[in-house]
Order: sequence, then structure tokens, then C-alpha cells
Amino acid sequence: MAQVNPTVGDLEGNSRIVVDYARRAAGQGAHLVVFPEMVVTGYPVEDLAMRNSFVSASVKATHALAESLDAAGLGGLPVVVGFLDRRDGVGPRFGQPAGAPQNSTALLHRGRIRLTSAKHHLPNYGVFDEFRNFVPGDSLAVVRLHGADIAFAVCEDLWQEGGPVTAVRAARAGLLITLNGSPYERDKDNVRLELCQRRAREINAAVGYVNMSGAQDELIFEGDSLIVDADGELVSRAPQFEDHLLITDLDLPRADPGDPPDGPVDGIRVVRYTVSTEPVDRYEPRAHEVTPRPDPVSDIGEVYRALVVGLRDYVLKNRFGSVLVALSGGIDSALTAAIAVDAIGADNVYGVLMPSAYSSEHSIADAEELVKRQGISGRTIPIGSVVDAFQAANPVEGVAAENLQARVRGTTVMALSNQEGHLVLATGNKSELATGYSTLYGDAVGAYAPIKDCWKTVVWELARWRNAQAERAGETPPIPENSISKPPSAELRPGQLDTDSLPDYAVLDSLLSAYIGTDKGLAELTSAGYDPELVVRVIGLVDRAEYKRRQYPPGPKISSRNLSRDRRLPITNRWTP
Amino acid sequence: MAQVNPTVGDLEGNSRIVVDYARRAAGQGAHLVVFPEMVVTGYPVEDLAMRNSFVSASVKATHALAESLDAAGLGGLPVVVGFLDRRDGVGPRFGQPAGAPQNSTALLHRGRIRLTSAKHHLPNYGVFDEFRNFVPGDSLAVVRLHGADIAFAVCEDLWQEGGPVTAVRAARAGLLITLNGSPYERDKDNVRLELCQRRAREINAAVGYVNMSGAQDELIFEGDSLIVDADGELVSRAPQFEDHLLITDLDLPRADPGDPPDGPVDGIRVVRYTVSTEPVDRYEPRAHEVTPRPDPVSDIGEVYRALVVGLRDYVLKNRFGSVLVALSGGIDSALTAAIAVDAIGADNVYGVLMPSAYSSEHSIADAEELVKRQGISGRTIPIGSVVDAFQAANPVEGVAAENLQARVRGTTVMALSNQEGHLVLATGNKSELATGYSTLYGDAVGAYAPIKDCWKTVVWELARWRNAQAERAGETPPIPENSISKPPSAELRPGQLDTDSLPDYAVLDSLLSAYIGTDKGLAELTSAGYDPELVVRVIGLVDRAEYKRRQYPPGPKISSRNLSRDRRLPITNRWTP
Repeated sequence: MAQVNPTVGDLEGNSRIVVDYARRAAGQGAHLVVFPEMVVTGYPVEDLAMRNSFVSASVKATHALAESLDAAGLGGLPVVVGFLDRRDGVGPRFGQPAGAPQNSTALLHRGRIRLTSAKHHLPNYGVFDEFRNFVPGDSLAVVRLHGADIAFAVCEDLWQEGGPVTAVRAARAGLLITLNGSPYERDKDNVRLELCQRRAREINAAVGYVNMSGAQDELIFEGDSLIVDADGELVSRAPQFEDHLLITDLDLPRADPGDPPDGPVDGIRVVRYTVSTEPVDRYEPRAHEVTPRPDPVSDIGEVYRALVVGLRDYVLKNRFGSVLVALSGGIDSALTAAIAVDAIGADNVYGVLMPSAYSSEHSIADAEELVKRQGISGRTIPIGSVVDAFQAANPVEGVAAENLQARVRGTTVMALSNQEGHLVLATGNKSELATGYSTLYGDAVGAYAPIKDCWKTVVWELARWRNAQAERAGETPPIPENSISKPPSAELRPGQLDTDSLPDYAVLDSLLSAYIGTDKGLAELTSAGYDPELVVRVIGLVDRAEYKRRQYPPGPKISSRNLSRDRRLPITNRWTP
Repeated sequence: MAQVNPTVGDLEGNSRIVVDYARRAAGQGAHLVVFPEMVVTGYPVEDLAMRNSFVSASVKATHALAESLDAAGLGGLPVVVGFLDRRDGVGPRFGQPAGAPQNSTALLHRGRIRLTSAKHHLPNYGVFDEFRNFVPGDSLAVVRLHGADIAFAVCEDLWQEGGPVTAVRAARAGLLITLNGSPYERDKDNVRLELCQRRAREINAAVGYVNMSGAQDELIFEGDSLIVDADGELVSRAPQFEDHLLITDLDLPRADPGDPPDGPVDGIRVVRYTVSTEPVDRYEPRAHEVTPRPDPVSDIGEVYRALVVGLRDYVLKNRFGSVLVALSGGIDSALTAAIAVDAIGADNVYGVLMPSAYSSEHSIADAEELVKRQGISGRTIPIGSVVDAFQAANPVEGVAAENLQARVRGTTVMALSNQEGHLVLATGNKSELATGYSTLYGDAVGAYAPIKDCWKTVVWELARWRNAQAERAGETPPIPENSISKPPSAELRPGQLDTDSLPDYAVLDSLLSAYIGTDKGLAELTSAGYDPELVVRVIGLVDRAEYKRRQYPPGPKISSRNLSRDRRLPITNRWTP
């Protein structure tokens, strides 16, 4: 199982990854190598699926990949990849994705595509839009290899009852391998293992789960590829977040010499291809590789690693070489800079301090200390003269004057970005985003927002974890202690504190989690013990901030209730619960 | 049929609209009154559907509405409304919208909900996300009224083959009425009429089509409610875009005295309620009201009206009283101001001129002329001193310096908005959006972008049409002739013209329409006669502008291939066709 990191649209680069890993697998004597969902195109392709020329390019690239493998002397190794295919013989139908695109698997062997099959269950919840973008498949691919039958399915087909999984049992395959592009979520990875274990027992077959690594746009793929045997026992497991070739020797049952009956099961036809019927000679299997998991599984360090991978791939896949962060001396920008340094190196991280008349001395000192500790490039551009020029041209006061300062900073970082080519990181956290506590076109400027799915309390946890990790390694903690311990402030007017406008973050985050994470209404929140007045105020803030949230830069999703795609509210909404 | 304009979340206000129109209908002797899809909640509710407290509020409001109608002396008049319901007896299922929300109809009679049924076909393409937000229904509601059987279905159920429409024929209803929230699209309205005609003949019954009026967020509902008889002949038709009560006398066949067999047809159960079995005494029917359509149906004036309605409802439903437009003297800001004046009146439209060193004399003169012609409030805030202050604090050049000017303007309009409470209109057109020819946080600031789905060539057409309309009415044309006739320029450097960076708009728009509207690739575009070098350059611009498009303010959708929700591309995309 090749846990790899493709890039959407990079058909040639992705094909090279496949050839490279197939070569490594062959070098270690593998009999079969399986890649993740849509490895040829990258995932998710979103509305590119409906572009006919893109589907054609994917099909062509997959044929070419089969030939490349053969030309590289790897034609004898069966290789299974995910790719974007089209369903033939389907005319245009009102409401059906144009061109009938499918999320498919292909068996490549001896220079050709030998067998294809398409994903049946198309998820359309949370971060997924597949029912919108694809036409469902109605077949299950089963490959006979050295006399053992191996079935292949795609991602959601393992999660849903009925369909391909039911057909695997009827087809009496000894192993089911699913190709996945399954995004990282806190607390999700044991769910994957438990699902594989349950399915293995249901279908009386071993189950392999190949996942992507890396990140694409807002999704982080955590890897964690694994195999369980027919009893549901864990056999092998790859590391999280990294590219990895997981080689596993499995003892599979020999298939019935005759084919089992292949009538449709649950509407699913079984399609078959035979690579070889003779079992391999008995050999000494290698020791099973099981990457240990931290316990408890989902700890804050795992989140930190996910954020680093998300930032790294967003910056590099979009062909930027450096990032720019506005440093306020506060915790959000300090953590953002630390993640950036861990992702792409201190040499590629640029900080800018933009003090105003209301910036406190400790803010400037904390920001300077951060630049020093992290070894990034830092500069200072005071904004007072620009704010004065705006005020002379068009005097404003109150919130307008507060926002003006944030927008002068936003314009300054964008000028540096345009002049020098850095990608700008926005430093807002999830608590701010939820409540709209930020300035549109001010601190909200940027191309990527690394901590937008982290509550403020999680931001503090991450900062403390990262500092502690540095201390354990005998390194300088990257984040100044004062940035962690001081009370948060936007510093847009004298003596301003976040707590002037918002409740204490511990209370706020708990309330926001209940409202956004579990969709509880006023009555439920109040009976859960929250102050009714506070609940009304906070959910009012959340509901009115929808417009700002939609305008915020994208960022890595680490929860099932992030604020980007999931939980899309009407902009005009007169209802408060 | 009550063609009305609800607001999402305003359950009380929407209920008042229903009572008001029911009273008017009763006053004219109506036997039945039918409202649009989800009139109780407004439409579309997006992810509010998954908030349990919102579903409960909708159900409660619908019960209360039945009681209010009765209390108002209208209990004897059967009223059919669309509302948000939940499917009972459905446990949570992985991937199913939380709480099993449904897009349903309710028959209200004598103070109670007497019969409900939910939408079966859930569209999830173009502007729709219903498969994501709702659980499908599996029943068809048939009401016996004065001995005639009348079936009710929701929107997409009329468009798709199979399901409820098939069940109508089996149930032998004499009339099918569909409740719709069907968005405006250029060239769509005859499609609706033709669909009703075809369905009427298929099911051998009259078909009524009740649609919303007004606008909600990015959707404009054009009304155009209509009825065709069982032969498909048009019987009555309401005007476009306006609220309207369309009263039609129909001669319906008497239902079989016994119920027809109601086994499920195409998986759809028939559910029935009898209001009355005795036919009404014969009376003199009123003349059929058929609002005439312009010919050809979809002309530029219709687009203009749609844009006016879209802007009006976005501003008013979001409780803003006024708008602010940055005036450059160019055609985009001139047309935007004209639409705003027609939508909310000149007294509520504020223009601001922000000349720089590169603004030509004619630009200033044209903008001043526009302020005068339209009678809006205008002011001038030169930006030179602010740009100089930025350059002194942090010198930049080239594109960075061009963008700086646009961002100083963006910050200035936002300061005015924050200070005075205006909603800022962004003035970008679809050609700019498609190619990314705008400055993020500069001319792209704002809460609503009235012409974002109009190609530049359509912008000119709209301006000419509006001026000609004024001339026909003996009024002053609102848009200065020079704004229409001069070559477009961003005026961010000396002598700059759009044609320095982009091809002529006639060629560009035609190419963009083919690429974006029909998903043609490089090979197809080249063989259609476009210069290959131009195609490569333009589609490169389009694909690289995805990030900017996502950050652009929302605006009214007038085409099936708008640039907001439909055609959502990956941000990271290495592929060019």
C-alpha cells in the first residue's frame, strides 16, 4: 500500500509518484501495489470533474501510466490506482453532472488498464461534494492474483451499509482493499480502524485501507493506512501524515477454482479479472510493521503536525516559496509563525511588526523576541503616519477608526506580498471567526489561515505543547512566554482587551462548541447551564458573522464542524433560536 | 396562487404574508390558495436545515399559522404552504443530514395541519444543495376539494422523470400544483412553461406552478407563476419579479366517488385528505389573467429588472438603508449606481470619487456628471496624500503600487461604510471576475456585487438599454454617454487601458462564455476558431483566478454558469487543458 501525496491537476507528477512507488514495491518483492483514491488526478477535484477535457486527460494519463509502468519493467506487477473516469453510454440527463464523471479504480497490468470500477456511495456532507460531482458506479472489481480473490472499493463504499461491501461477501473475496482520500479530523483515526475491523468480520475477509498523505487546499490527509485480518486483528499500520510504502505479507485463502455466481448483489455487479491462478511458493513472511499510535490517540501534538502539513502543502503546491505574517506580539501570530517555521523553514518566513499609537511596549518586545527565537526575517513598519493621512483625508471615529488601523496593516502586508512574492498568512482563530471578532480586509487579509479551525483555547494548548516539545529536545521554545500568558487584546484603542467585547475564552469556546459543534439551540444551551443572556448575545454574534466568515481566507480543516464549507448559513437570516 | 416574497428566518413575517394573501384570496371567493416552496421559513435555508431548533421553530410556526388563519376567519379556506419539516422515525445515519429535515408541503384547514408530504427529488447541482440539506420524501399529497382531486408536489419533482409526477397519473388527480422556489436564469422562463405543458399532457391533468418573487442572498425569484390545462394550453400567468395573487377559475373533472387504488407507484405512496366532496354550484368564471411576455422572452430589460430586484432585497432584507458606490467615471460603477437608484431610490445611494494622480480629467467629469444625472449624494476624497504616506512608510513599485491605490480606495469606502452605515457595492463584472482583473481588498471590497454575473459586453448592453428606456419615458438617461463610449481603463498607471492586459471584450467574452459556460477545452476552443495563443493565455488567467473569485462579494446569479457556487475549482490546480 503506497501512502502518497498527489497534487490536484498534476497528472504527470502524480504518475511519476506511482511509477516511483511501484518500483520501490517491486524492489521489495511485492505481488501487488495499491494507491489512494484518485491518485492520478489528485483529490478533491471539485468541479474540474465536470470539465470534459479534464476527464479525457485523466483517462489518457491512466492509459499512459500503464504503459510507463510496463516500459519501466514493472508491467508484471499489478498496480491499482484511483482515477477520474467517465461512465459510457449515459446520455445527458437533467441534474446529472455533465459528462457522467466517475471516481474510479483501475487495475494496471502488462501495459494496459485491465479492469475498472467506480465508487458507488458518493458522500455529500461535511467537506464532500461528490454526489454533486460524480455519477455513482454499480460494480465491484475483483482481481484473482496467485489464486486469491482481492476486491477493490473506494472510501465511502466502506463506510456505508449495503452496496459494494455486501457484494464482497457474496463474491467470496479473501481481501478487500479500499482506496481512500480520507481527510484528517481530530478523534477520527480509531474510528477508521474500528470500521475496518467491523467490516472484516462482516465479510469474513481481510481489509486493507490505503489513504493519502499530505494536504490539498483545505483538506489534510493523515495517511494511517492499515490492514486488518479476517478476524479484525490489526496486521500492519503506516505512520500518520507522511508518505510511506507499507509492505505486508498476508496469507489469503485460495479462491474457489470455479467462479462464484456473480448475479448483482444489492444492485452491484461483480466484474473480474484474472492476473494469475497459481499460488506463490511458501516463503518466510516479513515481520508486520505496525506504527505505534500515541495514547490517547488524538492529542494536541497530532493537531500540530496536521497544521504543519496543511500549511506546507498549501504553500508549496501553490508554488510559493515564502510566507509573510503580521506579528502583533500576541499568541495567534506567534503560533502561526511557529507552524510556518516548522513547515517551510525559518529562512522562508517573514514577519512584519506594524505598531500604532495604541501598541503597547510589551507587544513590540514580544514580537521582537519571537523574531529572535524563531530566527525568521523581521522588520518594523510603523503605521501612524498612514493612519494620520487617512484621517486627514476623511476623518472617522469609533469602530471605523479601529478598523482603519487594521486595514492599513492589511494593505501594508499585501503591498509587501505583491512586491516580494510572499504568501500572506492570516492569523485568526476559530473563536474570532465564529463571533466575527476581526476586521474584514484588515487582519482578515491573506491567502491561507493556518489556525482558523482552532478555538482560542486550543491555540494556547498548541503553543504550550510546542514550547514544551522544544524544551524536551533541548531547544529554545519558539513562542515567547509572555505571548502565551498575557490577556489577549486587539490593541485598536487605548487599553482595549478582548474581554471588553467577549466573555472569557474558556466559557466562550465551550459555548461555541455546543452551538456550532452540536447545533444546540437557545433552550438546550440554557438548560445545559449557560447564562441565557450570554447565549443570546453569543449566538447573535455567530449568526451575524456569516458574511465575514465567507470572506475569510481558506485554512486547514481539523474538525467535522469547521466554519468553511460545513455550516454554511444564509447571509440574510432573520432567525435566532 | 400567491406569488410572494418571504425572507429566510423571518417565520413571523412570512406567516403574516400568508395570512394577508389568504385574506385577499378569500375576499375574491377563492376555494383554495397555494403558496411557494418553503414560504414559512424562506428559501434557501442552507445549513439552517440541520439545526434542530430551526426545524422545530418551522413546525411550530406552521401549526401556529393554521391557527392564525382560523382565528382570522379563514379556517374554511384550504391553504397549502411549503415549510421545513422533519421525517419522524428516522434514526441518525452516517452521512444523512442531522435531524432528517424535509422540504415539505402542508395543507392547512380549519385551524390545523391536515396533510403533509415532502419533496422527493432533491436537486444538488448549480445553485442547489438540497441532497446535502434534506432527506427525500416518498409520498404524494392528494386533496379532495369540492369533489375534485388536487395533487401537490415541490419544484424539482416536476422536473425529474419518475417519482411524484408518475404517481399523479396513477392517483388520477385532475390538477397538480407545484410549489416552487425556482431561481431566475436568462432564457429559463419558456422552459418552465414548456415543462408544465409536457407534464400536463403526460398526466392528463391541469398543472399549476406557483413560484416565489423577490430575492434571497444570491438568488432572484422571478415569479412567472402559471397554470396550463390538461391539454397543455396556457390558462393564466402572473407577472415576473413582482408579488402577485393570481386567481384562476378552473373546470376540473369530478374524482371517482371511490378512491383509486393507492399502492405505491415508483416508490411513492399517495396520501389523501378530503376537504369536501360536493361540487360547487356552476358560476360564471372570471376572465383568465395572462400577463403578456416580451418577445423575445429573455431580453436585456428582463436582466435589468432581475438585477434591481436582487439588489433591493439584499439591501433591505439585511436591514441596510443605504448603499455606497465608488465612482470611477467608468461604465461598471455608473451602471451599478443606476441599478441601485432604481432599487432603493436616489436618496439612499451615496457615491464617492477617489481621484489619484492617474485619474484622467474625463473620469472625474464623467463621475460628477453621473452624480448629477442620478441625483445621488456625491463627494470627492482624493487619495494622493494617503498613497504618498504608504509609499513613505514602505516604498513599492509596479503591480504592488497599482494595487496600493486600489486598496487605499477600498479602505476609504470601508471607513465611510463603518462611519455612516452604508452597505458597500462592489462594481466588478463577470469578465473581470473570470480573469482575475481586479485588486483583492481594493476594488473587490463590498458586501454585494450587483453585476458580477454580467459579462462586460452585457454591462454595455444594460447601460444602453437603461438609457434608451429613460429616453422613451422622456427622462434624463442616468448613465453619461462618455462612460459608455470611452475605452475601459483601471487608471492605476499613466495611460493604462484594459486592452493592455486583456483582448478586446467582444472576443474575450465570447471565449470566456465558451470556456466557462460550456466547459470546452483547449482543443475544442482552438478548433472553434480562437487563436491558440489567446486561448492558452485566457484559460490560464481563469484557472489562476479561483482564489480571487472565492473572496469576491456575493451577487445576483443570472446564469446557469455563474462564478460563485457553480464552477468551484480547486485553489491548487496544476492542470491546464
